[in-house]
Amino acid sequence: MNDVSKNFSELLSLRAAEIEAVLERLLSPSPAGEEIIRPPKLLAAMRHGVLNGGKRIRPFLVIEAARIFDADREAALATGAALELIHCYSLIHDDLPAMDDDELRRGKPTVHVAFDEATAILAGDSLLTLAFDVLARPQNGLDDTRKAALVFGLAQAAGIGGMAGGQGLDLDAEISAPDEAGIIRLQSMKTGALLRYACEAGAIVGNAVEEERDRLKRFGEMIGLAFQLADDLLDVTSDASQMGKATGKDAARGKGTLVGLHGVEWARNRLDGLVGEACVLLEPFGNRADTLRQTACFIASRES
Amino acid sequence: MNDVSKNFSELLSLRAAEIEAVLERLLSPSPAGEEIIRPPKLLAAMRHGVLNGGKRIRPFLVIEAARIFDADREAALATGAALELIHCYSLIHDDLPAMDDDELRRGKPTVHVAFDEATAILAGDSLLTLAFDVLARPQNGLDDTRKAALVFGLAQAAGIGGMAGGQGLDLDAEISAPDEAGIIRLQSMKTGALLRYACEAGAIVGNAVEEERDRLKRFGEMIGLAFQLADDLLDVTSDASQMGKATGKDAARGKGTLVGLHGVEWARNRLDGLVGEACVLLEPFGNRADTLRQTACFIASRES
Repeated sequence: MNDVSKNFSELLSLRAAEIEAVLERLLSPSPAGEEIIRPPKLLAAMRHGVLNGGKRIRPFLVIEAARIFDADREAALATGAALELIHCYSLIHDDLPAMDDDELRRGKPTVHVAFDEATAILAGDSLLTLAFDVLARPQNGLDDTRKAALVFGLAQAAGIGGMAGGQGLDLDAEISAPDEAGIIRLQSMKTGALLRYACEAGAIVGNAVEEERDRLKRFGEMIGLAFQLADDLLDVTSDASQMGKATGKDAARGKGTLVGLHGVEWARNRLDGLVGEACVLLEPFGNRADTLRQTACFIASRES
Repeated sequence: MNDVSKNFSELLSLRAAEIEAVLERLLSPSPAGEEIIRPPKLLAAMRHGVLNGGKRIRPFLVIEAARIFDADREAALATGAALELIHCYSLIHDDLPAMDDDELRRGKPTVHVAFDEATAILAGDSLLTLAFDVLARPQNGLDDTRKAALVFGLAQAAGIGGMAGGQGLDLDAEISAPDEAGIIRLQSMKTGALLRYACEAGAIVGNAVEEERDRLKRFGEMIGLAFQLADDLLDVTSDASQMGKATGKDAARGKGTLVGLHGVEWARNRLDGLVGEACVLLEPFGNRADTLRQTACFIASRES
């Protein structure tokens, strides 16, 4: 590991710890300013699904994109945490028996295994709802204009036109395999939409002008494609102990991936190309965008 | 049926038709301003769960509360539709086999029966997300300040401190029956929170001052209690053909209700008392609040 990647991975850990602290506060038994004591079992299931030592790559993107514009730190953390709540809810619901039927997530029992199906469904619903609560609540460091823009952007990225719609296409894909354009569309919605939003949200938090915001959104688009390609590569090249979850499942179910269509070597070349394209988009920001450049490389080369 | 209640029920139908038109637009295959074609099966499941001829009592409350303050009509319709999307998502998830395991809703197959479980879970998630999209989207007639207030209020009403938390308590109640305070708390979260929010949201849409907003919130609280009590009464006094869903289930599962604790006659008296208290709260609004008064009576005396 060279100095740059060592420093990068230290920064990633630091940001993950910062987000973990925010998530811990958001999921405390009696949060500040609320009289109600939260139903203990439901809260425990939400905590199980969220406070699990994830890399927090989406909040990391929000925070580092916001830092380009010297944004308010509290506001960036709140926005990153909201996005992570959405990501975690989607994992809980995706793991359900009716969906991917996974029993392990990061080497631990999934929420419906540790609790029960009804509680896992409700925990997901509650986390999804909490994300919008966090973005819109008073005193989160955001003015009303940015609150409205962030809520709208998150709802678009997570809903039927984004992540949830992608998951819907994924269910259909188990019945009839999509062609290349279909695979790209599915992945761009299912995985890409939240990564794209992460980068755009950082720009919104930082009050970036429209051109800058659009640039970061396109950067997010590129690394979303890279993220999915790296994931598909890992699915064929790694084993379950490295991933902390079942692997090779996509291929086993006959779901198409670009790696499956074009092979491992093509995918590695394409990954390099995507990282290059992503970095070109960051040129106007000079060295203020160095961390985002490193993130693009990290996403393309990750091993778990 | 006397003239007042005939006019009231005509107004209820009129508003339901107005909301139905908004919901139909929100759930169209390619909504205005969005390029993406929505995944057909997922969209069909969402439509099945929403466009089902419901009474739309929550949007009705939003619209009629907003009319006290001469609020913008488009904004009130959007807010009412968002709230109805939340209500419909909660029904889809509550009906799932892991939850209440209901096969009928308004005399039609529930979403997981008409489609499948995975699609029902995703349809609920997508409707929940769409609700926040509708509140925060540009050109919905709301300024950013009201958008933020409405999003925050809806998230609080629907999340772990409100409806979802109440549903969590309800799952626990199947294991050990709650006492009277526990029953009231559960119902106030599970059913009451959205009705309370409906009235408060109307005040927000109408730019009401804080005292008025609080008054409408308390009115919503009262009719929420009345609504639940009427529901519990119906559960013991009506049969399945009237309700369009299975009845007597709560008692069969040993879930406590106030009717079960105190009997039918006590409950009918209590209902009258709640309607009286609710109407007292509306006095400062004079005859501008007549429709809300009639709504309180309607909720207490409904037969399905």
